[in-house]
Amino acid sequence: MQICEVVGHVWATKKEEALVGMKLMIVRELGTNPRRSETSFVAADTVGAGVGERVLVVSGSTARIAAGGDRLPVDAAIVGIIDSLEADCEKGNGEHGPV
Amino acid sequence: MQICEVVGHVWATKKEEALVGMKLMIVRELGTNPRRSETSFVAADTVGAGVGERVLVVSGSTARIAAGGDRLPVDAAIVGIIDSLEADCEKGNGEHGPV
Amino acid sequence: MQICEVVGHVWATKKEEALVGMKLMIVRELGTNPRRSETSFVAADTVGAGVGERVLVVSGSTARIAAGGDRLPVDAAIVGIIDSLEADCEKGNGEHGPV
Amino acid sequence: MQICEVVGHVWATKKEEALVGMKLMIVRELGTNPRRSETSFVAADTVGAGVGERVLVVSGSTARIAAGGDRLPVDAAIVGIIDSLEADCEKGNGEHGPV
Amino acid sequence: MQICEVVGHVWATKKEEALVGMKLMIVRELGTNPRRSETSFVAADTVGAGVGERVLVVSGSTARIAAGGDRLPVDAAIVGIIDSLEADCEKGNGEHGPV
Repeated sequence: MQICEVVGHVWATKKEEALVGMKLMIVRELGTNPRRSETSFVAADTVGAGVGERVLVVSGSTARIAAGGDRLPVDAAIVGIIDSLEADCEKGNGEHGPV
Repeated sequence: MQICEVVGHVWATKKEEALVGMKLMIVRELGTNPRRSETSFVAADTVGAGVGERVLVVSGSTARIAAGGDRLPVDAAIVGIIDSLEADCEKGNGEHGPV
Repeated sequence: MQICEVVGHVWATKKEEALVGMKLMIVRELGTNPRRSETSFVAADTVGAGVGERVLVVSGSTARIAAGGDRLPVDAAIVGIIDSLEADCEKGNGEHGPV
Repeated sequence: MQICEVVGHVWATKKEEALVGMKLMIVRELGTNPRRSETSFVAADTVGAGVGERVLVVSGSTARIAAGGDRLPVDAAIVGIIDSLEADCEKGNGEHGPV
Repeated sequence: MQICEVVGHVWATKKEEALVGMKLMIVRELGTNPRRSETSFVAADTVGAGVGERVLVVSGSTARIAAGGDRLPVDAAIVGIIDSLEADCEKGNGEHGPV
């Protein structure tokens, strides 16, 4: 699962029927190399996440299962809202220290 | 789902039978690090997207489902046309601000 | 689907039984950031592509379907030979202009 | 499988029902290009790994199987704790030498 | 399939039951951008590859099939030992020339 922050919403009127009613959030991966950290993408939300919250995001076929159905046209989904995380930064670059 | 812009079309006469009649669009991911932003690829379109529109694209096995069949040789598909998106750029780099 | 160019062949005598008789081509993705454009990989070919041709390549579980069987040990497959592509380069970096 | 180091834990109270009781660890890939080596992500742990240990991590649909069920909303899982690894560094950059 | 070189072995005593007896090799992708070429990972071997040999590696759900079972916790597998490869380097950067 990727550690992401919810940064916004996206609206699409014209879309696949199966996406109607699904809450779509823009998320951005956290804790990665700053050179690559600007990648944001859209994930379906079923846990009630809000902008500014740190969340766990699953991708691929797992996202369909998380979103509630094998036939959903979804390839990323928020599966949890992070309360806290604790990382040993001594061996790393401290990327999660200030998170 | 990736946030992409439709930038063109691709034509292939010699192809797998299952691709006949499928509308194939060239899309490019938006909102990522400029150093990586030039990646373009081909996605099947079932929602009627046109060049210049911002779209939501799914990849992998989800694309087959979105394109209408588990046996389709498709690994990327446009699932929605974006009306608007709203991202909190204060914590980010504003990549979606001007989009 | 990735836009690739066929750049060569690969031969492997010792391999999984299911790969026997399968035509394996070396392909390289086109139109991406020059810093990343050198990635080449091997794809199964079922459409009769030749070296120098631009092709559409699918990856992952879709490649097995494209190659003709769910049980094939294949994760990339050529599904079409590109006749032409037309991309709006005004908003991009023209990567497909000279292709 | 990726060669990773366990660097921490993550807690999420609000999450998908199926994740309740699952041990979620923050892992970071080892042995890659330093420019890319800071990517950390979350993996389900079923083998009892602890912070500081080097582990093997599987991703994608394989992670669901490793975690114990096809319907689990998990896309990364620790499948083994590395006792030792031996890599020929003469042809490489010695990235595993000091590991 | 990725073109890789076998660079070593990895041992893990504590691991998922299904991995017992499986030969796990450290492989490194060849022929990519030098800036990215240091990525090494672990693949299950069923064709008898040895250190120093160039091999074809499949990833994702295909690796489970290649390794012999849909329920194996494996996401990368060696499917062939490369005898030779021939790539048109005129249009590329010659990355496979000296391989």
